[in-house]
Amino acid sequence: MKKVRVGLIGTGYIGRCHAIAYAQAPTVFPLEAELQLEYLAEITPELAAQKAKEFGFNRSTGNWQDVVNDPNVDVVDICTPNFLHKEIALAAIANGKHVYSEKPLALNANDAKIMYEAAEKAGVKTLVGFNYIKNPTTQLAKEIIEKGEIGEVVHFYGTHNEDYLANPNTPLDWHCVKEKAGLGTLGDLAAHIIQMSQYLVGQDIKSVIGDMETVIKQRPNPNDLSQMCDVENEDQATAMVRFANGCMGTIETSRIACGRKMGLSYVITGTKGTISYTQERMAELKLYIHSDDPARQGFKTILTGPLHPDYKHFCVSAGHGIGFNDQKTVEIRDLINGLANPTAKLYPDFEEGFKISRILDAIALSAEEKRWIDIC
Amino acid sequence: MKKVRVGLIGTGYIGRCHAIAYAQAPTVFPLEAELQLEYLAEITPELAAQKAKEFGFNRSTGNWQDVVNDPNVDVVDICTPNFLHKEIALAAIANGKHVYSEKPLALNANDAKIMYEAAEKAGVKTLVGFNYIKNPTTQLAKEIIEKGEIGEVVHFYGTHNEDYLANPNTPLDWHCVKEKAGLGTLGDLAAHIIQMSQYLVGQDIKSVIGDMETVIKQRPNPNDLSQMCDVENEDQATAMVRFANGCMGTIETSRIACGRKMGLSYVITGTKGTISYTQERMAELKLYIHSDDPARQGFKTILTGPLHPDYKHFCVSAGHGIGFNDQKTVEIRDLINGLANPTAKLYPDFEEGFKISRILDAIALSAEEKRWIDIC
Amino acid sequence: MKKVRVGLIGTGYIGRCHAIAYAQAPTVFPLEAELQLEYLAEITPELAAQKAKEFGFNRSTGNWQDVVNDPNVDVVDICTPNFLHKEIALAAIANGKHVYSEKPLALNANDAKIMYEAAEKAGVKTLVGFNYIKNPTTQLAKEIIEKGEIGEVVHFYGTHNEDYLANPNTPLDWHCVKEKAGLGTLGDLAAHIIQMSQYLVGQDIKSVIGDMETVIKQRPNPNDLSQMCDVENEDQATAMVRFANGCMGTIETSRIACGRKMGLSYVITGTKGTISYTQERMAELKLYIHSDDPARQGFKTILTGPLHPDYKHFCVSAGHGIGFNDQKTVEIRDLINGLANPTAKLYPDFEEGFKISRILDAIALSAEEKRWIDIC
Amino acid sequence: MKKVRVGLIGTGYIGRCHAIAYAQAPTVFPLEAELQLEYLAEITPELAAQKAKEFGFNRSTGNWQDVVNDPNVDVVDICTPNFLHKEIALAAIANGKHVYSEKPLALNANDAKIMYEAAEKAGVKTLVGFNYIKNPTTQLAKEIIEKGEIGEVVHFYGTHNEDYLANPNTPLDWHCVKEKAGLGTLGDLAAHIIQMSQYLVGQDIKSVIGDMETVIKQRPNPNDLSQMCDVENEDQATAMVRFANGCMGTIETSRIACGRKMGLSYVITGTKGTISYTQERMAELKLYIHSDDPARQGFKTILTGPLHPDYKHFCVSAGHGIGFNDQKTVEIRDLINGLANPTAKLYPDFEEGFKISRILDAIALSAEEKRWIDIC
Repeated sequence: MKKVRVGLIGTGYIGRCHAIAYAQAPTVFPLEAELQLEYLAEITPELAAQKAKEFGFNRSTGNWQDVVNDPNVDVVDICTPNFLHKEIALAAIANGKHVYSEKPLALNANDAKIMYEAAEKAGVKTLVGFNYIKNPTTQLAKEIIEKGEIGEVVHFYGTHNEDYLANPNTPLDWHCVKEKAGLGTLGDLAAHIIQMSQYLVGQDIKSVIGDMETVIKQRPNPNDLSQMCDVENEDQATAMVRFANGCMGTIETSRIACGRKMGLSYVITGTKGTISYTQERMAELKLYIHSDDPARQGFKTILTGPLHPDYKHFCVSAGHGIGFNDQKTVEIRDLINGLANPTAKLYPDFEEGFKISRILDAIALSAEEKRWIDIC
Repeated sequence: MKKVRVGLIGTGYIGRCHAIAYAQAPTVFPLEAELQLEYLAEITPELAAQKAKEFGFNRSTGNWQDVVNDPNVDVVDICTPNFLHKEIALAAIANGKHVYSEKPLALNANDAKIMYEAAEKAGVKTLVGFNYIKNPTTQLAKEIIEKGEIGEVVHFYGTHNEDYLANPNTPLDWHCVKEKAGLGTLGDLAAHIIQMSQYLVGQDIKSVIGDMETVIKQRPNPNDLSQMCDVENEDQATAMVRFANGCMGTIETSRIACGRKMGLSYVITGTKGTISYTQERMAELKLYIHSDDPARQGFKTILTGPLHPDYKHFCVSAGHGIGFNDQKTVEIRDLINGLANPTAKLYPDFEEGFKISRILDAIALSAEEKRWIDIC
Repeated sequence: MKKVRVGLIGTGYIGRCHAIAYAQAPTVFPLEAELQLEYLAEITPELAAQKAKEFGFNRSTGNWQDVVNDPNVDVVDICTPNFLHKEIALAAIANGKHVYSEKPLALNANDAKIMYEAAEKAGVKTLVGFNYIKNPTTQLAKEIIEKGEIGEVVHFYGTHNEDYLANPNTPLDWHCVKEKAGLGTLGDLAAHIIQMSQYLVGQDIKSVIGDMETVIKQRPNPNDLSQMCDVENEDQATAMVRFANGCMGTIETSRIACGRKMGLSYVITGTKGTISYTQERMAELKLYIHSDDPARQGFKTILTGPLHPDYKHFCVSAGHGIGFNDQKTVEIRDLINGLANPTAKLYPDFEEGFKISRILDAIALSAEEKRWIDIC
Repeated sequence: MKKVRVGLIGTGYIGRCHAIAYAQAPTVFPLEAELQLEYLAEITPELAAQKAKEFGFNRSTGNWQDVVNDPNVDVVDICTPNFLHKEIALAAIANGKHVYSEKPLALNANDAKIMYEAAEKAGVKTLVGFNYIKNPTTQLAKEIIEKGEIGEVVHFYGTHNEDYLANPNTPLDWHCVKEKAGLGTLGDLAAHIIQMSQYLVGQDIKSVIGDMETVIKQRPNPNDLSQMCDVENEDQATAMVRFANGCMGTIETSRIACGRKMGLSYVITGTKGTISYTQERMAELKLYIHSDDPARQGFKTILTGPLHPDYKHFCVSAGHGIGFNDQKTVEIRDLINGLANPTAKLYPDFEEGFKISRILDAIALSAEEKRWIDIC
């Protein structure tokens, strides 16, 4: 049996989620290759060693270059802050490594394009961590749409709202600094829902017009709370979009949306029915079918279960619930099996990551210039 | 005690709701004038007579001109199809009658302006039937916002979606014909949520950009189902808006939104909290306050009750429920008491009705011309 | 056209609801008799006169005996405190009047039996105000059950919980005094859900065992808050029941159930499906059908609309909402039309009211004696 | 660092969940001992070998006696069908092994008592897999109750309903056979909610009266579908209970409750507030506090997050969701850390398992004998 040897770079918030998913994936799924947790990098050798122990990696280093250069690493998993994605990915690609990067792929579409093209040229496989589409519930939504159960999709409404910066007294962090984060809530949160909209509608977004606002214009300096610093990117944004087939869409995003802890949601209206979902109830989907007996019409709450994609690997009883790390585990399954099989393609890959970056940049530009922009 | 003598023109869908509200208003509320159901017009004398009996009106006629000319009518209540609002209102105003008109005020902003200016000049009072803002639950939302409980409003998301034309086999009706309806779902449905957005945010909308689509481009001819007719106006529309104080807003509307029976809804995000509401659960409001203990934060479901505006007149126990006609009854109370008191102003009046028409026209134009339009 | 001349006794909480329903009923429904608001009694002539004006009654009196003796009164509507129901009803029956009484019919089953038998003997018609079964949504539940859509009912779970006495500092009121109220929450609240269980299951309850508790054993004396008085009846109760056909049921009731404002609810499980409902969302019913495609099973939220019983008389669009007084209006329609038609039977009548009282008494006794009791 | 060496017996439905939890636990939690997956038994050596590979165990056997006799096994994890729990546990205890058993502990209280007393005498530690109380959301409920936020608990309503046998055509399986399963839905499902009621109320149940029914009296023979077999135990049951402090409770359970996939739920009413929960939305808790401003009272929906017990180990953002296996992972953490620390006690242990069995038996007996039974 083939082996896939992973080199993980970064062990913060999302790196830890990767580690949990790596840990459970071989038990949850029948993997087509052996998953080997080979090498782990952090910013100091000490932290790296500690995390390697915690996460079950064989070796560790305080220097990420060691990982991308290591002959025993097949795939480099990038969980660093966004601004490092590009440099690490390009180095890994240059060494012929497959790359699994967290989203957003890069700080802007130009960088994303360079990364995507480098991977194409090198012939390595890539995967971007848009994990929410791996949730069995959203896979079910996709299945319902593809089977035509709600007819032709005529409208997509999606949000990714959270409230992690709702309090104006929260000090400035890297999310608010262009050099570190690029865009604000568009890059951090909307990337997910925009990618998901393309996945679910089954069409690329072809034109956009956005509006956005930095509502809290200054925040305390984290190093000296008595000083205020400028917030450099948007707190909230809306975009009207059109998909390639003409379907209308609306995207909303905010990092100051009081009360939204995991406010990724969608309402997808078709000619024959409607789907409604929020990630805060990640194991249920609401489905309305217009051809039902008119006196018995209504939204049905479907609890995700073993008859839906991938769920049965976690539990064979419906409604028993899946969690955030479980969808990451599906992503790891896709990674390992995709790398095990030479002809398989990973999805969503750097090309998709680039497309999303391009849309995000276009939304920001269209908001500044107050005009529709075509994506091309 | 003063009397207010009503002349009702039109007894279809909404006219009947007026009649029910007239019937119960004097029992529900302490009215400041005696409500007298004086005169009723329908398209034939026979129908008028029958409806007068059913609705408890003193006299009836097959000619609406009789009502606007009658010396014993103080206020003319217009419940006709939209395209007749203007002619009837202008005739009533010319005779010095107060006018209570259903929404949308007119087929376009120009007509609405003529009506508003005529009323101003004549010094008569006017009221437009934007009844959803009279619901005690939405009045509670207004109160929460005005008291600053959710801080400064930074985002308004509102919808008015229904599915009465979702089935493509539903024959063409007057809603789809420009000459009869003017705009499509924008005029029929979005008028409500746009007016409500101004009421709740407490600011006028100052710029808009819309997008819209006639999804079902042809429908069967109602007189010959084997023939197809063009649908002349939009089935769905979205608009991004900015209020006078810069607050962002998004409005969505559709008459083909499968599953939405009364899909008027709003999510209002402030710097300190969030309100969420749907008219399909018209007696509950969801409220989130960000300053709650972080380990006990969450959206609270408030059931409307006697401590909230106007509810106690219907029932003195909370959570016992209010219905569609009840909010119309509040509107009738506003009408009668506003007319009883010479210095009182009715709200929302023709000026507000005109403002809404102007916004609707701007959204449609901005969609065609693909550009932001300022309202002025 | 026949006339039904009403004599109303009592204008407090529920009397006022009757008045609102009387006001709107003739406009909402095609009544088969003319409804005449003839005579109104209150505890003083002044209050009676004021309320008669407010509610639109022709005449008034400070003496309820005047109403039951009046030759121009066809039906006596009893909205007094519970302990007066019996005396008034018997006097009205003795005079050959039809009687419309609020629930609970009497303070105990013995009294209820006397009332029921007197009415039977006199051949007058009777109606008890179990208004919640008149709600179109609950009528829909009944229709679904009767059509066999959920198969044979195998379990009924019902509650009527409120929190009007949840605060231990709320002074003692008449609800807590045996002489005035009889039972506590059983008589005040559970009467509704027990009657509703028989209506929906379509079977009488045949055996019961209850448990109950006076949680707050003393309350401040309303006349001297520094003194404490004993609470004389139960704050909360549960009963296991069996219906005539063997179907299991559970009833729960509380007047100290924090957070429940109108907590009448039911879950009805059948061999083929399940219905779930709460009166706090009185215009929606949840329906699950087990024969649905297993991958698309789920509870459907049906918004009550014009295709469901009686709704269309209030509004011809689905999901537009019905309120508490609307279900009372359906009850008034049943009253008037039932009296207009000599052969019609009113439902639920004094016989049903007696049956409910008998069940309530049996539950209380079974709780004291800690044993199952058959209803016979 | 100490090691805990696990011997797993049984790899079906729940055994697989254990395996997933073992896999992720060391990454999710800082364990106080090293978890070693040492030995695995299944009914054949081949199946055992395959599962050992899949689950990451060192060794395997087709004979469970090998596991309980193995000197390198510290704790025996019993995931076999219920009827084998006793024999395996007693053998393990006899060898001085700690025992971790799935629920229900035994087929009846007598057997459970023997097991509990054997473990006590041998001085080994025990844990029973009542995993639902390990869910961070239910731990939060416990915390809220213990802090007195809802005052004194006055009522507990709990259910564990599922529909896995709702279809009468589903053939008889071991759940329906007394010799294999003991009780029906009481043992299979109600065990969970009864144990949870004691955990949350913080009191043991002291008296019970039950009612129960085998609704579907015969099912097809799984070996010959044309033949029907008797169902030997109850499909649904209800019990009224009293806790040691007098608090009232109601328990309902069914395996034929159409639409319930994971219908474990509770409503806990206190003198100052109420908690409401359903396992189908396992990451949200509804909380009502009666002392809130009366005009702002309502149930708050709290999304479980890092400020609540144990959640932060899975994810540091609120509302991101936890799944079924995550609560099992908390249970594994309790097991390992409890065994690592010589003075620690595991909970819920065999004593608790015995108490639950005793309550279940009492409910069944009380239903047969139609009388209240004290637990002693």
